[in-house]
Amino acid sequence: MDDIITLSYGSGGKKTSELIEDIIVPHLKNDELLKLNDGAVLKGFSKMVFSTDSFVVNPYFFSGGDIGKLSVCGTVNDICMCGGEPRYLSLSFIIEEGFKTKDFLKIIESIEKTAKECNVKVVTGDTKVVEKGKGDGIFINTSGIGILKYDFLGKDRMKDGDLVIVTGNIGEHGVAVMLEREQLITGVNLISDCMPLNILAKEILDFKEKIKIMRDPTRGGLATTLNEFVEGTDLGIELYEDRIPVSNEVNMACEILGIDPLYSANEGKIVAVVSSDIAEQLIEKLRKVKGGEKSAIIGKVTSNFKGRVTLKTEIGGTRILTKLTGMQLPRIC
Amino acid sequence: MDDIITLSYGSGGKKTSELIEDIIVPHLKNDELLKLNDGAVLKGFSKMVFSTDSFVVNPYFFSGGDIGKLSVCGTVNDICMCGGEPRYLSLSFIIEEGFKTKDFLKIIESIEKTAKECNVKVVTGDTKVVEKGKGDGIFINTSGIGILKYDFLGKDRMKDGDLVIVTGNIGEHGVAVMLEREQLITGVNLISDCMPLNILAKEILDFKEKIKIMRDPTRGGLATTLNEFVEGTDLGIELYEDRIPVSNEVNMACEILGIDPLYSANEGKIVAVVSSDIAEQLIEKLRKVKGGEKSAIIGKVTSNFKGRVTLKTEIGGTRILTKLTGMQLPRIC
Repeated sequence: MDDIITLSYGSGGKKTSELIEDIIVPHLKNDELLKLNDGAVLKGFSKMVFSTDSFVVNPYFFSGGDIGKLSVCGTVNDICMCGGEPRYLSLSFIIEEGFKTKDFLKIIESIEKTAKECNVKVVTGDTKVVEKGKGDGIFINTSGIGILKYDFLGKDRMKDGDLVIVTGNIGEHGVAVMLEREQLITGVNLISDCMPLNILAKEILDFKEKIKIMRDPTRGGLATTLNEFVEGTDLGIELYEDRIPVSNEVNMACEILGIDPLYSANEGKIVAVVSSDIAEQLIEKLRKVKGGEKSAIIGKVTSNFKGRVTLKTEIGGTRILTKLTGMQLPRIC
Repeated sequence: MDDIITLSYGSGGKKTSELIEDIIVPHLKNDELLKLNDGAVLKGFSKMVFSTDSFVVNPYFFSGGDIGKLSVCGTVNDICMCGGEPRYLSLSFIIEEGFKTKDFLKIIESIEKTAKECNVKVVTGDTKVVEKGKGDGIFINTSGIGILKYDFLGKDRMKDGDLVIVTGNIGEHGVAVMLEREQLITGVNLISDCMPLNILAKEILDFKEKIKIMRDPTRGGLATTLNEFVEGTDLGIELYEDRIPVSNEVNMACEILGIDPLYSANEGKIVAVVSSDIAEQLIEKLRKVKGGEKSAIIGKVTSNFKGRVTLKTEIGGTRILTKLTGMQLPRIC
């Protein structure tokens, strides 16, 4: 391998083989990988979940993670949120000519580590290289397949009186990436919450039909995701500002940056609507899981404000939270 | 929708919903699409094929196709080459800020048309937008799932005396894109061979165990694919130059461009190693299929030249064909 990745590595010829054999395969080898070129043959499932995400995060290394970790978590988490148990991932790179081979290796190592952590296998892949100035370092697509384990989730199952829970402090990923990118504020130690959600998701889904719907509030943040929950239904969601967990660091950074933690992306949190009778018990369980320590009940489903999300502020007012409009934080995932 | 795609369309908020609801969903709607956000729940199969490809072709509109058609064909064809019957596709965009909405729509229409043609459903997707100068118009990733119908394919099944067939004129996609991009030669009417290979693949695989291995020779061309067939085996492949179908246009353009049709990408051809006793009969069948009219036997598997591909030239010499080294045609897919 050369020190930098040149256009030849995307040619489909010898150099491409070198990139795959020398860097990718040693880290991601498994029983199913590369048995046949250009596709993997897999054991099937009776019902499955299929998901895809492209990652363009800038910068590709940030506090708490990198584009490799994010690419695995992002798709794994989407599968979990659909009630699936993630099994297989595809992995596709678009690399800008001149990208440092050692950075690529770091990203592959990070993919390897995260995939092991969530027990998924990378089984097929692709690599393209574009000319300098026609990309931005590295973009990654992962698509994933999981077994559908819990097939009851859906917004149509929400009811007046259900409660809204979140598994911890919100807004951390968006703000961490933003700070890393702009180098705006010094002295604030903010780490992305990027992590696989398979364990937290399993804890939640163990409550079966008591769980109505769940999602990881990534782009657009908590407020946008909750809007998607009530959109097209006869229900609204009422949030209580004083119960929403936000770290001091995020609050401080958001004030300086002029952004709202409710709209800042998360990459390691679940928001779920659950039956009120199990909410306390669920929160207790989640708080014992790594990454779930700050789980909290933050609001409720109501038949008021049909299709709307409202926020009871700490000073007693009510604010309507719409979906994110325009662009708040581009390229945070 | 605005006339151009701005960063806001990648925010995950209202504008992203608008892009999805106004443009993508109306064209790609089906029973399985978007039942749950960020993932599709699908009926499973006992054995499946999973494949992924990112497309960065430049220009994204070219004679005979566009990046949308190519994205569907590319992944559909990879699944077919593994013995799978393609069923589901994911679709993920990385769009450069300022991309024309009408061009995006054209690409979506092309995806719609091609997906219908190959009887696959787009069931999940993602859209990212990057700043101007950080991408190049549009990049598309498709990943696909198929049912494994033919599970016998593998290079270990090739034998001395087997024959090599190709389903038509080679090198057309690479040369067509190159001409389109560079506007080098006028008066040559060259069209990419980009097409779905599901029907041709089925014709071939109907010969069951008589078929040893097959592939669509994309990046790196026919020569690179055949090298991959013999790599790590005790066999070689001997090609006959005078039997390899190449159009006059491709030959002419290749001479001017200084490239070799054997290394130029195809996006609508299959190369297969088949048992000698059915080769003639198979060719006869293939010639009756649209896109297979120029099918031909072009070489044979031999125990000479272990691991090598050789070419008997028209003037009687023998040339060793290695894998593509370096970069011949960047960004042809």
